[in-house]
Amino acid sequence: MEMSIEAVLLQLFALFLLAKLFGMVCERLGISAVIGEISAGILVATTIPLSVLGLGPDISLFNILGLDQDISFFEILSELGVIFLLFAVGLETPFSELRKVGMTATLVAVLGVILPFFAGFALILGFGHGQTEALFIGAAMVATSVGITARVISDMSLMQSVEARVIIGAAVIDDVLGMIVLAIVVGVASGGNTGILDIILVSASGIAFVLAVIFIGSIMMPHARRRVEDRRNRRTGDDQEEDILCVEKKKPVLSPLPLALLICFGLSFVASYVGLAAIIGAFLAGMAFAEFKDKWPCEHDFNSINEFLVPFFFIYTGMLVDISSFGDVLFLAILVTILAVATKVIGCGLGALKMGKKTSTIIGVGMVPRGEVGIIVASIGFSLQVVSQDMFSVVVFMSMATTIIAPFLLIWAFRRKYGECKLPEQPA
Amino acid sequence: MEMSIEAVLLQLFALFLLAKLFGMVCERLGISAVIGEISAGILVATTIPLSVLGLGPDISLFNILGLDQDISFFEILSELGVIFLLFAVGLETPFSELRKVGMTATLVAVLGVILPFFAGFALILGFGHGQTEALFIGAAMVATSVGITARVISDMSLMQSVEARVIIGAAVIDDVLGMIVLAIVVGVASGGNTGILDIILVSASGIAFVLAVIFIGSIMMPHARRRVEDRRNRRTGDDQEEDILCVEKKKPVLSPLPLALLICFGLSFVASYVGLAAIIGAFLAGMAFAEFKDKWPCEHDFNSINEFLVPFFFIYTGMLVDISSFGDVLFLAILVTILAVATKVIGCGLGALKMGKKTSTIIGVGMVPRGEVGIIVASIGFSLQVVSQDMFSVVVFMSMATTIIAPFLLIWAFRRKYGECKLPEQPA
Repeated sequence: MEMSIEAVLLQLFALFLLAKLFGMVCERLGISAVIGEISAGILVATTIPLSVLGLGPDISLFNILGLDQDISFFEILSELGVIFLLFAVGLETPFSELRKVGMTATLVAVLGVILPFFAGFALILGFGHGQTEALFIGAAMVATSVGITARVISDMSLMQSVEARVIIGAAVIDDVLGMIVLAIVVGVASGGNTGILDIILVSASGIAFVLAVIFIGSIMMPHARRRVEDRRNRRTGDDQEEDILCVEKKKPVLSPLPLALLICFGLSFVASYVGLAAIIGAFLAGMAFAEFKDKWPCEHDFNSINEFLVPFFFIYTGMLVDISSFGDVLFLAILVTILAVATKVIGCGLGALKMGKKTSTIIGVGMVPRGEVGIIVASIGFSLQVVSQDMFSVVVFMSMATTIIAPFLLIWAFRRKYGECKLPEQPA
Repeated sequence: MEMSIEAVLLQLFALFLLAKLFGMVCERLGISAVIGEISAGILVATTIPLSVLGLGPDISLFNILGLDQDISFFEILSELGVIFLLFAVGLETPFSELRKVGMTATLVAVLGVILPFFAGFALILGFGHGQTEALFIGAAMVATSVGITARVISDMSLMQSVEARVIIGAAVIDDVLGMIVLAIVVGVASGGNTGILDIILVSASGIAFVLAVIFIGSIMMPHARRRVEDRRNRRTGDDQEEDILCVEKKKPVLSPLPLALLICFGLSFVASYVGLAAIIGAFLAGMAFAEFKDKWPCEHDFNSINEFLVPFFFIYTGMLVDISSFGDVLFLAILVTILAVATKVIGCGLGALKMGKKTSTIIGVGMVPRGEVGIIVASIGFSLQVVSQDMFSVVVFMSMATTIIAPFLLIWAFRRKYGECKLPEQPA
C-alpha cells in the first residue's frame, strides 16, 4: 500500500475544509466560490520562508500534509472532478436548445470565440513563445463561464430581459465552439506536427469527432426514442399509457445515475483514446444525456457528487500555481487579462451591435468571465507539457481576474441602460 | 504522472459496468445486488488458464485492464466507498432511536453478538490459527446487515409486525456493539501485545473512544442545540420564529453536505489516528449527524455519492478473493457459515424466547445475513496483515452465503407463523 488511508483522510479533511472556508469568504464578498477554492490551493502550495527569518526550515501546508510524498490520488481525483463538472455543464446544454438560439446569439458566440482566440494566439507568439503554447492560451481565452453572469442577472431579477436571453443562448453555442477549439488544439499538441496539412487534418478529425458524437447522441438517439414512443402511443392509446409504463417498470432496470456515469466514463475514455481531452467526451456525454433528462433525471445526483469532487479540482489547480515566480509574469498576466476583457466586449458586442450600443455593451460584458473553463484548458496544456508553469499561472490569473471584474462591469452596464432603480448596491 | 487518466477512465468504465450488470442480475434473481458486485470482482481477478489449453498465455480481466500496473487509486477509492457507506449506516442509527429500543431487542442484540463472536473465535483457534486472526473472524461473524431482512419484510408488507420492530431495533444496537467489538479487535491487532492486561487496556480505550464520541456527538451536542433553540423560542415567541430564521439565513452558510463530509473525514481520520478502524469514526460521525437530520438533511446527497463509490468497494473486495485456492478452504468456509447461521438463530432466538417459539425463530433468522459488514471487518484484518487471504475468502464466502440463504429461511419462518396468504412466491 503506497498511500495510507489515514494520510489521505487527513489530506481530504484539510483540503476540503480550506476550499470551503475560502469559498464561503469569497461568496460573502460577492465573488464566485471558485476563486476562493483556487486561492486555498495557492495558499497550500506556498512555501513560507521561515529560514530567511532564521526561524527554522521553510514550510508549506503542502509538505505538512504529506502531499509531497504522493499526490497521485488527488491528481486523479481532481481530473475526475473536472470530468464530472463538464458532464454537468453538458447536461445544461441540450442540443434541442441550440436550435432555438437566434441569429444574434450565434453571431455573438462566433465573434466572441474568434477574436479572443486569435488575439491571444498572436500576443503569446509575439512574446516569443512557441506556436503550440500560443494555441493553448488562445483556446483558454475562448471559453465563457456564464454561471457568474447568470448569477448577477438573476440577483438583479433581469433573467427575462432580452440581454439575458442572448447571453445564455450565446453561452450555449460558445460551449460547443470552445470544445471544438479545444479538440483542435489538443490534437495539434499531441500530434507534434506543425505542417499546415497536418494541422488541417488533425483539426478536421477533432471537429468530426465532436460533430459525430453530437449527431449520434443528441440528434439520432432522441429521434429514435421519439419514434418508438410515438409508435407505442399509437398502439395503446394515450389513456392506457400509464398502465403500460407501470407494468414495464416492475423489473429493476439500470437507474439514471449509473447509466449516466457509464456514458460519462465511456465517452471520456473514447475522447482521450482518440487523442482529444477527456473532458470533451464528458461534455458531449452530458449534452446527449440532456435530451433524456425527462426520462432519466440525474442532475441532482451529479450535483451531490460534484459538491464533493469539484473543489478538489480547483484546489489542485491552485496548488499548481507558483506564486514565487509570479512577479516575473505579472506584466504579461495583466496584458492577457486586458486583452481577454477587450476582445470579448468588442467581439460579442459587434455581434449584437444592431440591438443598440448600450445593449451590445451589456452582452459583451456578460460574456467576459472565463471562470473554470479557461483554467481547465490551460491545465490540459500543462499536463501535456506544452504550457509552461509560468503561462499556466498567467491563465489562472486571467481567469480569476475576469471572473472578479465581470460582475462590477455588468452592474455598471445594466445601470447605464436600466437606471438605478432595480439594482442592488453590490453583487451579492 | 504515474497513473494516466485514460487508463483510470477505462478501468472505471469496465469495473462499474460489470458491477452494475452482475448486481442487476442478482436483483432479478431476488438476491442482494451486493452479491453480484462481489462476484464481478471475483470474475475480474480470476485467471483464465489459456496456457493449459495451449491457446496462449494465461489472461485475466485484471491484467487486460492494466490493474496489475497500479491499483492504488482503486484501493483508496474503495476505502473511501466503505467510509461513506458506514457514514450512511450511522445516519440510519440516531442515538435517540437507541433509547426507544425495548428490553427484548437489547437482549436479542447482545446474545446475537456474544454467541457468534466466541463460537467463531473458538472454531478458528481450534483449527490452529493465531489468536488475532481468530479474533477478527469472530468479529466478522458479529455484524448483522439488516438491509436484506428489511427488504424481504417490506416485500411481504409485514413492516408493522412485532418481529420487524424487534429486528430493526436489535440491528441498531447490533451496529453499535459491532463497532465496539471491532474497536477492541483492531486495537489488539495494532498493539501486537497479547498479554491479558494489554488486551484489557486496549479494549477499554477502544470502548472509551466509541462511548466518548457517542456522548459528545449524539448526546451533548443535540442537547446543547435543543437548549439554544428553546431559549431563542422563549425570547422571540413561536410566531416570530420564522422571520428570525429568514433573516439569519440571508448570508450563505456551509450547506449540509460539505459539513457532513468534513465531520466524516475528520472523525474517520481521528479513529484511524488513535489506532482504530477509520470506518468506526465514519459510523460515529453518521450517528452524530443523524441527530441533526431535520436541520441539515444530507441523506439523499450521500446516497448519490455512494451509488458512485460503494460498488468499487465490493468489486475490490471480490478482486481480493483468490478463487483458485478456494478448494483448500471450502470445508472450513461451510463450517463457518453453518456456525454463523446457527449462532445467530440460537443467540437472537434465545433473546426473544418469551415472545413464543415461532416468533423467536423469525427474529433469529432475520438477524442471520452478514452482508457487507462482515466483509468490511475481515478486509480491515486483511489490510493489517493479521487475516490471511484464505481466511479472508472464508469470511467473504460466509457473508455471501448467509445473505443468500437468509431470505429463504425468513420466508419459511414467516409462513410457519402467518400461513401462506399474504406471502409472495419467492423473495423479489
